[in-house]
Amino acid sequence: MRTFTQVRVVGAGLIGTSIALGLKRAGYQVAIEDEDPQAEGIAQSLIGQSGEGPVPELIVIATPISSIPGLVRTFATRYPEARVMDIGGLKSEVVGEIEKFPEIAARFCSTHPMAGREISGALAARGDLFEGRIWIYTPTSDTSDLALAGALEIINALGGKQVLLGAKEHDQAIAGISHLPQIVSSLLSATLIDISDRDIGLAGQGLKDVSRLAASNSELWSELLHANSPAVVEFLNILLKHLEDLSTSLQNDDLRKTQEILALGRENHARIPGKHGGKKRDYWYLPIIIADKPGQLAKIFDACALVSANVEDLTIEHTPGQESGLVTLALSKADAAKVYEQLIKDGWRVHQPRESIG
Amino acid sequence: MRTFTQVRVVGAGLIGTSIALGLKRAGYQVAIEDEDPQAEGIAQSLIGQSGEGPVPELIVIATPISSIPGLVRTFATRYPEARVMDIGGLKSEVVGEIEKFPEIAARFCSTHPMAGREISGALAARGDLFEGRIWIYTPTSDTSDLALAGALEIINALGGKQVLLGAKEHDQAIAGISHLPQIVSSLLSATLIDISDRDIGLAGQGLKDVSRLAASNSELWSELLHANSPAVVEFLNILLKHLEDLSTSLQNDDLRKTQEILALGRENHARIPGKHGGKKRDYWYLPIIIADKPGQLAKIFDACALVSANVEDLTIEHTPGQESGLVTLALSKADAAKVYEQLIKDGWRVHQPRESIG
Repeated sequence: MRTFTQVRVVGAGLIGTSIALGLKRAGYQVAIEDEDPQAEGIAQSLIGQSGEGPVPELIVIATPISSIPGLVRTFATRYPEARVMDIGGLKSEVVGEIEKFPEIAARFCSTHPMAGREISGALAARGDLFEGRIWIYTPTSDTSDLALAGALEIINALGGKQVLLGAKEHDQAIAGISHLPQIVSSLLSATLIDISDRDIGLAGQGLKDVSRLAASNSELWSELLHANSPAVVEFLNILLKHLEDLSTSLQNDDLRKTQEILALGRENHARIPGKHGGKKRDYWYLPIIIADKPGQLAKIFDACALVSANVEDLTIEHTPGQESGLVTLALSKADAAKVYEQLIKDGWRVHQPRESIG
Repeated sequence: MRTFTQVRVVGAGLIGTSIALGLKRAGYQVAIEDEDPQAEGIAQSLIGQSGEGPVPELIVIATPISSIPGLVRTFATRYPEARVMDIGGLKSEVVGEIEKFPEIAARFCSTHPMAGREISGALAARGDLFEGRIWIYTPTSDTSDLALAGALEIINALGGKQVLLGAKEHDQAIAGISHLPQIVSSLLSATLIDISDRDIGLAGQGLKDVSRLAASNSELWSELLHANSPAVVEFLNILLKHLEDLSTSLQNDDLRKTQEILALGRENHARIPGKHGGKKRDYWYLPIIIADKPGQLAKIFDACALVSANVEDLTIEHTPGQESGLVTLALSKADAAKVYEQLIKDGWRVHQPRESIG
């Protein structure tokens, strides 16, 4: 149930724009703004906004971590009736800063959605980014019931799974489950700087997955790591120790020790939630072999339109200079079956629909 | 074209069983065997095999690395007319061992498909595991044209992309693009051993991706790492250096240095082939707002076909139940300009082409 209508999102990055898209879908009146006019323009056209928007009842601050306390105060002062929440990746400093102003702290609840993408910006936004994802909330010592209820309503409207966590516990946990993976991914990528283009071109899915986060925004991440450095350094020391142990066991040809280290990683991996820890989007995948020439995709989509199938997502794999490529459509199970039949009828080389893209 | 019919696969693990499945689909007569009767039984029932199978014309050795040279000799001797290939993850030792027996080396070609899954065993097998994936081949100094042609026919039948590489070059490259990501993933997972179940339960997609390989078989991997240890240790030393530098910059609150390290990883990440392999190319991106209903994509692709533009890749961002979505086409710079013009003419809401998707 919606207990308010007017929402203002401040910050048209990936998270802010995704929140705006999702809330609009959920029936809220949403306006979004950003100090960067280009990002603001894209985000506003995505949500169909024209004009500045009315006085907000709830404000979501979705900007880089260092600017959050200031913006919370600015907007809380500008709109003295509004509740305010943020979605920053660290809690201790933000909550501590806001608690210095009890009147504002009463109207404020800090939160952190555990969702993101390595690509940033409004264009990467999607309204269902938070669906089934954990969304941590961290009230201040002064947060009113009303402010808390507002934040929880937003999380709920976006499909997030609410988890209450103290600021310190949050930052400690995040160091391990978010900051450490980012570092590991970035350093792996940096370590490969000297290998040839030919060699890096041989990489399989493993390297692609492990290095995916390395594409993240370096400035935003440096800021986060420094703001959480004691907890991060603690994890880095453990990682360093493991790395030195493994290097030693390889140099001493101590196979048993190497196995032990890898087995430790394997055992602990079982505790990490599965690939679809969030709500699984139940897509079926339909791989189609296409010729690498103009018009092929148009024909496939004509076939989809013919059977009224809605393509949810699509990937294209192809090899420069090679004559054929592979297009994989993501569809509902029923649509996948319809499109499969139609494409077979049309003479395409198409695989059976499958439940995983693997 | 098939130039032979009878194939024997030795080793009913993930790779061996996937090869057997794929070759059967491609029209070969395939038999598979394994010293483990349970794995053998599963694989044989997956490919519908009953009985031992006829005399093979080509044998694929798909067993752990240390057993390959011995099995190549055993099977080459047992079937003196057959060609033999292996799919082991390292080449120097296998090729070197086989070259000691020129008569066998003439009938042998070493290969390595760059495909795998972190789950192992016959049950994880899929006949299309190699489709579109790089498959390296490394002839011995004695490999005959016939033996080479046999290996290439198999790779081709399974949809692999053939890449010729010397044994040493292969092993050096693999240390960076395969062994190092495995280590990083395992050590990340091991480092998180002491965090609580509650905290690990908060993990988002980042940790899941970066730690995915940690689930791999520890024994197989220890063997591979030790067989390639000089090259692996070289990369570990570079990684250690980066890790120490980052730890230092965090402790000294040297934000610029941290940014520098992360930026290095980010830059180098751009060289890693995209999600679906293939060399990364300089695409331009064209974001288009679409209505979320069947037929929209077909119309866009009709426009692309009209101006003879080749769509290289495409992403769809939309929210189920929402009225508009965003399609971003990846095209050459020239094609992006042509399509942009055409879509504007057709009345689409389309943004200017841009050089980055983010």
